[in-house]
Amino acid sequence: MTTPRFSDLNVSTRILLGPGPSMASPRVLRAMATPPVGHLDPDLLQIYTEEQQLLRYVFQTENEWTFALSGTGTSGMEAALANLIEPGDAALIAIHGYFGERLAEMATRLGAEVDRIERPLGEIFSLKEIETALKRKRYKVFAIVHAETSTGAEQLHIGEIAAAAHRYGALIVLDTVTSLGSIPVKIDEWDIDIAYSASQKSLGAPSGLAPITVSERAREVIQKRKSPPPSFYLDLALYAKYWGEEHAYHHTASASLHYALREALRIAAEEGLKARFARHRANAELLWAGLEEIGVPPFIPPEYRLPPLTTARVPEGVDPHRVRTRLLKEYNIEIAAGFGALKDKVWRIGLMGYSSRRENVLLLLAALRELLRS
Amino acid sequence: MTTPRFSDLNVSTRILLGPGPSMASPRVLRAMATPPVGHLDPDLLQIYTEEQQLLRYVFQTENEWTFALSGTGTSGMEAALANLIEPGDAALIAIHGYFGERLAEMATRLGAEVDRIERPLGEIFSLKEIETALKRKRYKVFAIVHAETSTGAEQLHIGEIAAAAHRYGALIVLDTVTSLGSIPVKIDEWDIDIAYSASQKSLGAPSGLAPITVSERAREVIQKRKSPPPSFYLDLALYAKYWGEEHAYHHTASASLHYALREALRIAAEEGLKARFARHRANAELLWAGLEEIGVPPFIPPEYRLPPLTTARVPEGVDPHRVRTRLLKEYNIEIAAGFGALKDKVWRIGLMGYSSRRENVLLLLAALRELLRS
Repeated sequence: MTTPRFSDLNVSTRILLGPGPSMASPRVLRAMATPPVGHLDPDLLQIYTEEQQLLRYVFQTENEWTFALSGTGTSGMEAALANLIEPGDAALIAIHGYFGERLAEMATRLGAEVDRIERPLGEIFSLKEIETALKRKRYKVFAIVHAETSTGAEQLHIGEIAAAAHRYGALIVLDTVTSLGSIPVKIDEWDIDIAYSASQKSLGAPSGLAPITVSERAREVIQKRKSPPPSFYLDLALYAKYWGEEHAYHHTASASLHYALREALRIAAEEGLKARFARHRANAELLWAGLEEIGVPPFIPPEYRLPPLTTARVPEGVDPHRVRTRLLKEYNIEIAAGFGALKDKVWRIGLMGYSSRRENVLLLLAALRELLRS
Repeated sequence: MTTPRFSDLNVSTRILLGPGPSMASPRVLRAMATPPVGHLDPDLLQIYTEEQQLLRYVFQTENEWTFALSGTGTSGMEAALANLIEPGDAALIAIHGYFGERLAEMATRLGAEVDRIERPLGEIFSLKEIETALKRKRYKVFAIVHAETSTGAEQLHIGEIAAAAHRYGALIVLDTVTSLGSIPVKIDEWDIDIAYSASQKSLGAPSGLAPITVSERAREVIQKRKSPPPSFYLDLALYAKYWGEEHAYHHTASASLHYALREALRIAAEEGLKARFARHRANAELLWAGLEEIGVPPFIPPEYRLPPLTTARVPEGVDPHRVRTRLLKEYNIEIAAGFGALKDKVWRIGLMGYSSRRENVLLLLAALRELLRS
C-alpha cells in the first residue's frame, strides 16, 4: 500500500451566502485555534456553564436542560425525537418543506406511528389546520419547523400552535436550526418542549454542535420512559449528567468547537438580540429590494419571508445551476440551489450571523447583475 | 432576562497525558483556523477524497466505505452497531473493560439479544475463550475492543479472532479508538467488518470526528436490512451517498474539523506508520522504566501492555485523586483516574499522537517524583 502524499491545505476563501454554514468571525476562528484541554478539565466545565447561560439567553429560556450536543443540527433533530418517542407512540409531523420531511422520516425510523400534515413548498400552516389535525388523535409528540431552510418560509403563530398542542395532550418539538440568532425564538414564552438548532447558521460558529433546550414537561416524560432511548450517543439524560454537577463521562466533547461556539454566543450577547434581529432584517430587506430590481424577486410573500434565508425566483430562460457555479468559481460566492420541486425554480440565499453584512449583499447583487447580463 | 457577559476565552495550556484528547500539533490547529467553506463546496469534497485515502492508509484497508463521521468516537461505536443490528438479532460482546460494557449497552438499546463474555479488568481474552463463546449460537455480530482505554490492555490475536467469528457466521466489529495511529491496526489483513476510531487520540486531531471503515461483507448486510437503521444521523448508507459520487446532502459536516483531521493524517503519513508505531513504543518504554523507578509500576503485563495508554499502580497510602489534581493545578499536566473498580488503584497515562514526546515523559516523571515525595 503506497503512502498517500498531499500538499498543504489550500482551500478557497468563500463568501458564504448559502443556507449554512455562514462565515465565522475572525474572533471565532481565533478562539477555535486555542490548544484544546480535556473533556473533563475544570476550564472546559466552566466554559459549559457559560455556554449554557449564553444558550439560555439566545433561546430565551430558563430550562435547566440546555446543552450543545456533539453533532450537527441533524443530531439535534434526532436527539429531540429519539428521547421523546418510544416504539408505537403517535407523532404528528407538520411538513412544509424538506426538514419537515426529515422529521417524519426520523420519527418513523424510531418506531413512531407517524401522521403527517402538509403544505406545498413555500406555504405555511394556519393555526386552525394544525388544531384540526391535533384533534384527530392523542399524539405524544407534535413537531414543526420554525424556519424552513428549504423554502425560506417562517412558520408563524408558534406560541398559539404550542398552546394547541398542549391542549390536546401533545408535546411540541420546534426546529430552530435556521431561526435561532436571527429572528425571535421565545422558548419559554411560547412554551416549547424541545427546541434544537445548529452552531453554523444564525449563531455564526463553525458546524459541529447542536444547541438544544428541554422543558420541565419534556424532561419528566424522558425520565419516565419505559426503556432508554435507542441512541446512547444522543441520550439527553446522559448529557445532563455530563453537563451537570456530576460531570459523569459520556463522550469526549470537542473543546475546540466549544471555544468557537462560546465566542460566537458572546458576540451575539454583546450585540444584543434586538439589535441582531434588526441587523438581519435590514440586510435582508436590502437584498430583497435589490433582487426585485434585477428581476429575481423573492419567492415567499413578505408576511412570512425569512430574513436569514431568502428563496429568489430564477428568471425565465436562465440556467440556475450555471449561474450558481459561476458565482462560486468566478466570485467565490456560495449560494444554493432550490430543494426538491423548487430545484430549478429558485436560488437560496442565506444572510446569517457574520455573513449578514451590507457589503455581502451589495457584492452578491452586483455579481448576480453581471452574470444575468452576460 | 439579563444579557450574560463573559470575558475573553482564557483557558489553561495543558500537557495532555490522559486517555484523550491528546495535544494537537500547531500545524493541526492552524489548519483548523482556516475560514470554513460549505459542506458541498468542491474544495471540501476534494478534502474528503484525500482524507479517505489517508484513512485507508492508517486503517490499512482498501474498503470503499471509509469515512470520518460527524461525531466523537462514541458516535462511531453507535454507527457500527446501529447499522448492523436489527431488533432481535443475536450479538456477542467481549467485555474486558468499560468500552466493552458500553458496546453491550448500545447493542441492548438497539434491540439485540446480547450475550456477554467477560474478563476481569486488566486481562484479555484467549482465542479459545472467544471461539467457545462463538460456537454457542449463530451470532450476527461479535464486537470487541482492540485497545481498552479503561485498562491499558491490548487485545491480542485479532486476526485469529476475526477468522473464528467468520467461521461461526458472525460479523466482527472492532473498536480501534485508542489503537489507530499508535499500534498496528490491519483491517484488511485481519479481515475486520467494521472498525471505528476517534480523531483526538492516537491520530492527534481535536475531538469531533469518528473515522470508520466497513468491509464489503458488512456493506452487503447493511444494504439488505429489513428496515433502515433507527439512526438517520449515523446511517452509513447515507454517508456513502454524501462522500460518494452523488454528494447527496445528509448533514452539514464541519469543514473546520475535516481541515484538522486531514492535517493530522497528513502528519501521520509523512512520519510513516512504522516510524510512528516505533515512536509510540519508545516513549512508552521510557515511561514504563521511569514509573518502575519511582515505585509506580505499570499494571498491565508487558505482553499486552498498550504503548498509547498506560495504567500505573498507585503506591500504598497515596491519594491518587489528590496527586492527579495537583498535577493539573500546579504543573498543567493532565492524567486520568482509573475506571470502575480500578478508580483508586491506578492512574491512566496517555502518550498518543503529538503528546507522545520524550520531553512530556521526562516532565511527567519529574513532576510525579516531586509530588510523591511531598
